Amino acid sequence: MAILVVGSVAFDSIETPHGKVDHVLGGAATHFSLAASFFTDVRVIGVVGEDFTPADEAVMTRRGVNTLGIEHAAGLSFHWTGEYSGSLNEAKTLGTDLNVFATFEPKIPSAYQDSEYLFLANIDPVLQARVRKQMPGVKMVCGDTMNYWIADHGANLAVVLRELDVLLINDGEARMLSGEQNPVKAAHAVMAMGPKALVVKHGEYGATAFFSDRAFAGVESVTVPFRAPALPMSEVVDPTGAGDSFAGGFYGYIASQPKLTPTVFRTAMFYGGVMGSFAVEKFGTERLQALTREEIEERFRLFREMSHLEASVA
Amino acid sequence: MAILVVGSVAFDSIETPHGKVDHVLGGAATHFSLAASFFTDVRVIGVVGEDFTPADEAVMTRRGVNTLGIEHAAGLSFHWTGEYSGSLNEAKTLGTDLNVFATFEPKIPSAYQDSEYLFLANIDPVLQARVRKQMPGVKMVCGDTMNYWIADHGANLAVVLRELDVLLINDGEARMLSGEQNPVKAAHAVMAMGPKALVVKHGEYGATAFFSDRAFAGVESVTVPFRAPALPMSEVVDPTGAGDSFAGGFYGYIASQPKLTPTVFRTAMFYGGVMGSFAVEKFGTERLQALTREEIEERFRLFREMSHLEASVA
Repeated sequence: MAILVVGSVAFDSIETPHGKVDHVLGGAATHFSLAASFFTDVRVIGVVGEDFTPADEAVMTRRGVNTLGIEHAAGLSFHWTGEYSGSLNEAKTLGTDLNVFATFEPKIPSAYQDSEYLFLANIDPVLQARVRKQMPGVKMVCGDTMNYWIADHGANLAVVLRELDVLLINDGEARMLSGEQNPVKAAHAVMAMGPKALVVKHGEYGATAFFSDRAFAGVESVTVPFRAPALPMSEVVDPTGAGDSFAGGFYGYIASQPKLTPTVFRTAMFYGGVMGSFAVEKFGTERLQALTREEIEERFRLFREMSHLEASVA
Repeated sequence: MAILVVGSVAFDSIETPHGKVDHVLGGAATHFSLAASFFTDVRVIGVVGEDFTPADEAVMTRRGVNTLGIEHAAGLSFHWTGEYSGSLNEAKTLGTDLNVFATFEPKIPSAYQDSEYLFLANIDPVLQARVRKQMPGVKMVCGDTMNYWIADHGANLAVVLRELDVLLINDGEARMLSGEQNPVKAAHAVMAMGPKALVVKHGEYGATAFFSDRAFAGVESVTVPFRAPALPMSEVVDPTGAGDSFAGGFYGYIASQPKLTPTVFRTAMFYGGVMGSFAVEKFGTERLQALTREEIEERFRLFREMSHLEASVA
């Protein structure tokens, strides 16, 4: 089943201890789409400027991503400049040039209307809400956000949260959004704002899914949290897009399955970790572009082997 | 099979956001022994002062722990004063009174000589090495240490590390001991100092076992790390002894099994997490004293449910 994703398609200039790149293809919707494309059909809503070339678009279309909903506007594409140092756990934003994103009005092509799964990638919650409103019939809605929107756009974000099935954020964002230091209390406070389930990403330590006691088709019976591992990595080249790639693997797998079950949700958490682990191996989208489904399955087996008591059945 | 443990038997004065206790029974060997006692026979080597009462000793003997090797010396027992604030992730030491521990000379009762498993709990590496030397025929040696010994007693610690099968430390200690920020590089640098395997504890995020490529009877075939979850807890009353309780559950389970296999090692990691999760529910050893094997098994099933793709077989 097809996923409709709205979010940034951008250029990133990134410096990490492993090197420096200038204006490489990035953006939340881009990383998400590439990761999800290994599992299901993906359709993108976004906006780019005149600097977005056919070669950039081909990065997505080569993976079967539908780019019909990417609007081409006059001006430059969204551009993010950031750097990572030390443990590479947190990005330091050096510059955010919204450019064509500043006046973006998301329009949904009629060919996208039958999308059953909606992903609201990390953008202005006003835009997230506008897209959500235009897709009233979707089966499932997942979303992401970040500290900037939590801190200064709380009222707009609250509107988006009320209609989410699953919110995917990291530990710091969960603490900030809830005002709670304890991870369990934070999770339940966030779910009280709307999301029926919450996936909290812990970087190198994996991710935890929490479930509210409200009905959630397919996982009604789940009452305990689920913890998915991350791969211990001897080298993280560029963490940019790891969270979006996690979301793409997670949601792409869910959308690829006939129905949601507890095992499908858990397996999706593992695929999220798998896609995140690939994303950080090279700068930008380079690793996701060169990836094969066989490599994904091989790493999935590794995640299982790393976390299950019994050796896997061959 | 019996585990011989050498370490501190002490009194702790602790303040956390949940309250304050004065001179409660504690110490690494105490927490370790109580946790391991649910799985196998435990024998303790340590020293206490005149303030250590028969009631204190009964806390251990009631759980079947053999206290024959606890020497009673003139003076006061080892006393640690500490506090936790905020996220309760790190203790702030306010005072360390070595007292009778300052002149401790470990002596091993002849009844302890047939112990097959040795645990060197967190004490002066000079004492750890002395006990190790007196037990040349043991089947397996595991140990713990802390930042204090890593920083200022590196040469003495190196002697202990050379003969360890498994070292159990936390993330910060692994970085400090190795000088490496990356967790995988840190693990391999630590194992190059001696330990054939390394268990790194991540607090609320669980623990990771790394394996060297040197022969290790029972787990020779293991080449990938293993990640065990921790229980997301809505309330941590007192983290003191969590690491020692992890080690007790881990090693106690291993010693209870006829032989070490990859599944036994993995299961032991889960029992470590289980015992750590109980230890922090109340101050001092209170929770471990009241615990039952049924509660342990119930929580073990919860850990499995939280981390495995398929629902457990009932």
